[in-house]
Amino acid sequence: MTIVKVGGKVVEEPESLKAFIKDFASIAGQKILVHGGGRSATAIAEKLGIETKMVDGRRITDNEMLNVVVMVYGGLVNKNIVAQLQALNKQAIGVTGADLDLVRAVKRPVKEIDYGCVGDVKAVNSQQLEELIKNGVIPVVAPLTHDGQGQMLNTNADTMAAELAKAFAQNFRVQLVYCFEKKGVLHNPEDDNAVIANLTHNAFEEHKASGVINDGMIPKLDNGFSSLKQGVAGVVITNIDGLKSGFSSGTTLSLE
Amino acid sequence: MTIVKVGGKVVEEPESLKAFIKDFASIAGQKILVHGGGRSATAIAEKLGIETKMVDGRRITDNEMLNVVVMVYGGLVNKNIVAQLQALNKQAIGVTGADLDLVRAVKRPVKEIDYGCVGDVKAVNSQQLEELIKNGVIPVVAPLTHDGQGQMLNTNADTMAAELAKAFAQNFRVQLVYCFEKKGVLHNPEDDNAVIANLTHNAFEEHKASGVINDGMIPKLDNGFSSLKQGVAGVVITNIDGLKSGFSSGTTLSLE
Repeated sequence: MTIVKVGGKVVEEPESLKAFIKDFASIAGQKILVHGGGRSATAIAEKLGIETKMVDGRRITDNEMLNVVVMVYGGLVNKNIVAQLQALNKQAIGVTGADLDLVRAVKRPVKEIDYGCVGDVKAVNSQQLEELIKNGVIPVVAPLTHDGQGQMLNTNADTMAAELAKAFAQNFRVQLVYCFEKKGVLHNPEDDNAVIANLTHNAFEEHKASGVINDGMIPKLDNGFSSLKQGVAGVVITNIDGLKSGFSSGTTLSLE
Repeated sequence: MTIVKVGGKVVEEPESLKAFIKDFASIAGQKILVHGGGRSATAIAEKLGIETKMVDGRRITDNEMLNVVVMVYGGLVNKNIVAQLQALNKQAIGVTGADLDLVRAVKRPVKEIDYGCVGDVKAVNSQQLEELIKNGVIPVVAPLTHDGQGQMLNTNADTMAAELAKAFAQNFRVQLVYCFEKKGVLHNPEDDNAVIANLTHNAFEEHKASGVINDGMIPKLDNGFSSLKQGVAGVVITNIDGLKSGFSSGTTLSLE
């Protein structure tokens, strides 16, 4: 099973999204797509007069912003991807963590920062989705969870993909792919071709300490290494070309 | 199987929606919920500076308005209902007509009026959803369809419910319920208690000609009678109290 998380510019521009969906659809075997949509959410929020506040790349999600992300991730982005997969004769279904009780979360406790309606994943309930997947259905997952008390919550899409990968790794051989606009993890942020082909956990710690790897890449890689530790067979960070070539390019993570 | 379409004020006010969901959840046996959300869509559109245009109670859906209804129906309203059903320990899944290729439509041809991205239902593909229902899942259906070419379309929720009822009537004994704020079909629009308990098709034609039944009630009843003609076992128009009492109040349609 291949679980692809797509985010960044790829998902925000209609042309690149369309190209991505075509390449995603051609991946052989069982697959799940997890998408972001943060830039669209920010744009819609702005039009609605709702200010976007980010801390360390994470969105502060008050009640108004929650409505925006539920609309944009769960509705606009999700359903357009599903419709495009259907146009390619792929039987897809769009879900959030609330659908089929797929991902339960707890509202993040307030420490230094009040993230608002942000959910930390508590449990993945993959059974019903597994049945659909066995029937040839491709789940398209929006990065939203629920608390089991009727409250939707906003959850980081990289985390969502990793948690699904860990849960499905119990019954499937799972390959987790983070697909974004860069070719992979770079050892020189100024050079888009400076891709680290194989990144060990030790090297990641060194690059993190030296500042070569920073910002949004750190939680992505934390999610990636944590997936490997919990039974996910492979983790690759790549772009559309990497996806198209069967992951012959990009950064492959390894524990040792 | 009971297919309930809920619309009007019931779905727009958090308190009445919550009460409705509790009553809906307590209906015995297999069930599907089809929801509207037009007033929320109008409110969000207004905040986004998009003007709402209606002709005979039908929304003109240009590209901008389509984005709004996909967000509001497919995201905001749909996912909040699903999360609330999960809170009642009901295994629910939110879908549009694009998900599982459930409802295909064709963009309405332009005659006197250009309705824009409005879909006339062409085919219901209920097989995958039937499997979920047999596994105890409650589908929550947003009134959106797709054209099979990647385009989402806006479809009237009453029509959506009727088309699903007709399709499921092939394999299930289907009861179709239109639940809204009035007690039923009224023979005096000024008197909310003047409910017609049993409405035959002939009486409907007479009331329509005399103007006793008018506006939005006409397409609802057209959908209801057309469902009866195509194998749906029963059609009831009622409010929350009628739903709660097992349909002991409200208007029951009959062909003769």
